[in-house]
Amino acid sequence: MDKAELSNYREFLRDNLRLQLNFHLTDQNQGIAPPPVQKPIQQDQTMIALPSSEQWQPFSSTRLLDAITNRRSHRRYTEAGLTLAEFSFLLWSTQGCRGVISPGTALRTVPSAGCRHPFETYLAITNVEGLQPGIYRYLPVDHALVLEHAIEVEELRAALTQATLNQTFTATAPVTFIWSVVPARSEWRYHTAAHRVILMDVGHLCQNLYLSCEAVGCGCCAIAAYHQEKMDELLKVDGDEEFTIYLAPVGKV
Amino acid sequence: MDKAELSNYREFLRDNLRLQLNFHLTDQNQGIAPPPVQKPIQQDQTMIALPSSEQWQPFSSTRLLDAITNRRSHRRYTEAGLTLAEFSFLLWSTQGCRGVISPGTALRTVPSAGCRHPFETYLAITNVEGLQPGIYRYLPVDHALVLEHAIEVEELRAALTQATLNQTFTATAPVTFIWSVVPARSEWRYHTAAHRVILMDVGHLCQNLYLSCEAVGCGCCAIAAYHQEKMDELLKVDGDEEFTIYLAPVGKV
Repeated sequence: MDKAELSNYREFLRDNLRLQLNFHLTDQNQGIAPPPVQKPIQQDQTMIALPSSEQWQPFSSTRLLDAITNRRSHRRYTEAGLTLAEFSFLLWSTQGCRGVISPGTALRTVPSAGCRHPFETYLAITNVEGLQPGIYRYLPVDHALVLEHAIEVEELRAALTQATLNQTFTATAPVTFIWSVVPARSEWRYHTAAHRVILMDVGHLCQNLYLSCEAVGCGCCAIAAYHQEKMDELLKVDGDEEFTIYLAPVGKV
Repeated sequence: MDKAELSNYREFLRDNLRLQLNFHLTDQNQGIAPPPVQKPIQQDQTMIALPSSEQWQPFSSTRLLDAITNRRSHRRYTEAGLTLAEFSFLLWSTQGCRGVISPGTALRTVPSAGCRHPFETYLAITNVEGLQPGIYRYLPVDHALVLEHAIEVEELRAALTQATLNQTFTATAPVTFIWSVVPARSEWRYHTAAHRVILMDVGHLCQNLYLSCEAVGCGCCAIAAYHQEKMDELLKVDGDEEFTIYLAPVGKV
């Protein structure tokens, strides 16, 4: 391996950049308003309400110790779909909002550097109770969904397989969580020191998906290897101000 | 903000590099043996056994739903220390080993890209039952500790405060988890595509620390902002083949 090339990449893991930055020049310290905590919906989109916490009580018996002990990556799923209550619980667990404390700042079920929470959650759905197949987006502040675009099941499965570089098990999942990043949310506060912590932050939420799957008879498998352009096309995001960063198929096991 | 500069950093978040790499040239595909799953101990070091899972039963009543609901960052701690059983549970939760399946490959309580698990866990201890103050390291395969070097409490607190750029609350924690990365473990398989996923992986384990703190009456606060050289000096790691990547003070709340 080329040690010099690796050395540049290793530097990205260190926190040296912070000491070189002039934080007086960040958008935050220049008095620029922060980006919204969630991407607004279009006028022609209708919010789909999700079951709230009272309907998660069937999942409340799972103990933390057992969830941690039993967690593993699952790449095989039964043909069963998810109920809307199960699905709602998984969404809340990964990005659920505990309150918007100021414009641009929301507390969630997972931590994020500087409380920036730079992610949007897309769902490639083929088999969830009451939802037609397609790409949806979660709205944490409203605990609701919007349909971004409907897609036929077979077409969606083919697109997912292609966009994950032929990881064919993605096509067998009733739902795949696909997280995009809106880097400006974190750059507003951290400028070029944002990107290191954005990657850490997406790990936080994915771990909660692994654990909460244990409570609803599901399993998942995080995927960091995918075709960037194809995945961004599937989500219909611009690839610059918003693009795919991580994903995880979820199904019954 | 300089958009061109940001653009280079944003590229690090995307998965484009994977398609440009010749994976035939990775150490793994060149038949080179993987690095060990945990850094070996020195001849003069003695393993300190940790309480095993039977002794975690007092913590088993915490439900996953409650842990996720109640999780938040804590920067204030009482003066109480941790029992060895509590501490042992937190260590297992974040990096515990479920088995070594081949040389260089171990399954753990958290996922890691390609099962590489490139981290070591150091503990800056000022108040944990039965342990003298100092820097320790966790050995996940053995579920044991080693003392790396003893330090007086006040000296350790001062060093932590300095190395975290004056985040003074670190000095009040009975124990601070400090994760280092051994990048070669992940580079062995992914070459320059390793570093993006290393940062995601450290997010996984930190989330488990947040949740398991809820089961033992503790709280933590992840810290990604620190003085790289000072933190590496405190751990006595070389800063190249191994260096600090993330940390989290833990205490009773």
